[in-house]
Amino acid sequence: MRLRLEIGYDGTDFHGWASQPGVRTVQDVLEQALRLALRLPQPPSLTVAGRTDAGVHARGQVAHMDVPLESWVTMAPLALRRIGRILPADLTVRAIRVAPPGFDARFSALWRRYSYRVCDSLASVDPVRRRDTLSWPGPLDLDRMNEAAGMCLGEHDFAAFCRRRQGASTVRNLLRLDWRRADDGVAVATVTADAFCHNMVRALTGALLPVGDGRRPATWPAELLAAGVRSPAVMVVPPHALCLEQVGYPPDAELALRAAATRRVRIVGE
Amino acid sequence: MRLRLEIGYDGTDFHGWASQPGVRTVQDVLEQALRLALRLPQPPSLTVAGRTDAGVHARGQVAHMDVPLESWVTMAPLALRRIGRILPADLTVRAIRVAPPGFDARFSALWRRYSYRVCDSLASVDPVRRRDTLSWPGPLDLDRMNEAAGMCLGEHDFAAFCRRRQGASTVRNLLRLDWRRADDGVAVATVTADAFCHNMVRALTGALLPVGDGRRPATWPAELLAAGVRSPAVMVVPPHALCLEQVGYPPDAELALRAAATRRVRIVGE
Repeated sequence: MRLRLEIGYDGTDFHGWASQPGVRTVQDVLEQALRLALRLPQPPSLTVAGRTDAGVHARGQVAHMDVPLESWVTMAPLALRRIGRILPADLTVRAIRVAPPGFDARFSALWRRYSYRVCDSLASVDPVRRRDTLSWPGPLDLDRMNEAAGMCLGEHDFAAFCRRRQGASTVRNLLRLDWRRADDGVAVATVTADAFCHNMVRALTGALLPVGDGRRPATWPAELLAAGVRSPAVMVVPPHALCLEQVGYPPDAELALRAAATRRVRIVGE
Repeated sequence: MRLRLEIGYDGTDFHGWASQPGVRTVQDVLEQALRLALRLPQPPSLTVAGRTDAGVHARGQVAHMDVPLESWVTMAPLALRRIGRILPADLTVRAIRVAPPGFDARFSALWRRYSYRVCDSLASVDPVRRRDTLSWPGPLDLDRMNEAAGMCLGEHDFAAFCRRRQGASTVRNLLRLDWRRADDGVAVATVTADAFCHNMVRALTGALLPVGDGRRPATWPAELLAAGVRSPAVMVVPPHALCLEQVGYPPDAELALRAAATRRVRIVGE
């Protein structure tokens, strides 16, 4: 029986999603809690849509796990409440239900949407939000940044903004990348792609901020992209202002098809 | 020379605004930082618009202090940057400038506006915001709460919702009290009054939540108000979801007049 979970976490005190010996990770804490809450014979193995780095938050993370049918039938009515009682305050399961046939949290996903929060004005600094907001020392021109971002949209080899991995494609389809002011004056990026290579959102943001404060021309990020190699001039911005907001999936009937297609194209995807 | 400061803080690790021996308070940390940053001969004495309790946050707190003219003239251009370098991450001075004549951060204020955040749905829980959001176990009907809140507006003796102090009036003018859903689904109260007695926002909120989840009729808060005595049935909700958002002042020409009038009416105000 495959279950689909919606998950949120404050990444501050986690060493990222992926299980690692000796450090506190979202996957480890969650798998242990699920074993207890659902009385499973062993910790389940979670597959996740976005393997976030240390310090990155999530509001709309999605994962799946396979459990014995009889465990779920017994525990289903109480599952969410029991999980909530076991999890620490910085991790929550918002929903858990039987996954539709063919669902794979990672390979069925059509897109991932992230946000990145930057406060560029002393008058807008809010200490309550310091754990999910970057402070930037000068005012940002969001129109310039949006002009620069627009030139990076579409399917490209994003090698300039990725940490390269052996045997992994860095071709991605950047569906959306724009900046707006939130009600509190903070500049918020919305970044959506079919998938992201490692560090890609943080490197793209790091290329756009110097455009926003005037140190680089609006064409700079697109020029980096076209060059196709990692440039030491691109800063990878800090993780704490990044949040995985939502993961999009196709209609149920297309889940299995999508998963098969994704597996063919990408050897390692995120 | 009187200076006007705009201040923000994450109240989590402060024992409230007011200076107290042996504990970390906003006033103490800020006064020490201002002494260093402005090279004052002794710590200044801050007068504040809203003396927030332990755990309460502020985005738009206002204070004033009197400093020697020559200190300010020398330090003015660098003041904000120097203060920022000294203050800890959970406390910020957003602006500092010479106060208009007659300005008193406490007694010139026309109104204080607070917010209170309540998450009433597991599907909306966001661990990143757990330090400024209350979790409520059942869904809240905001229309019912707004109906109940409307009956409490206006000038009343709020003794039912205040901790009484010797010689202090508990008559206040409640200008606004309503609930709406934020973009993230969280229920947010906006509460504005000329001033608040101690615990007043948290007790009013505590009277409205049982209306929202159906355990009390919509007339209950107004009935408590009319009874005029503190009821043990009213819960004082936790401080961590409360934030002082803004303080309103009259035009500069009316500041001194307003301060004199406030002093006549209230012996102790907040």
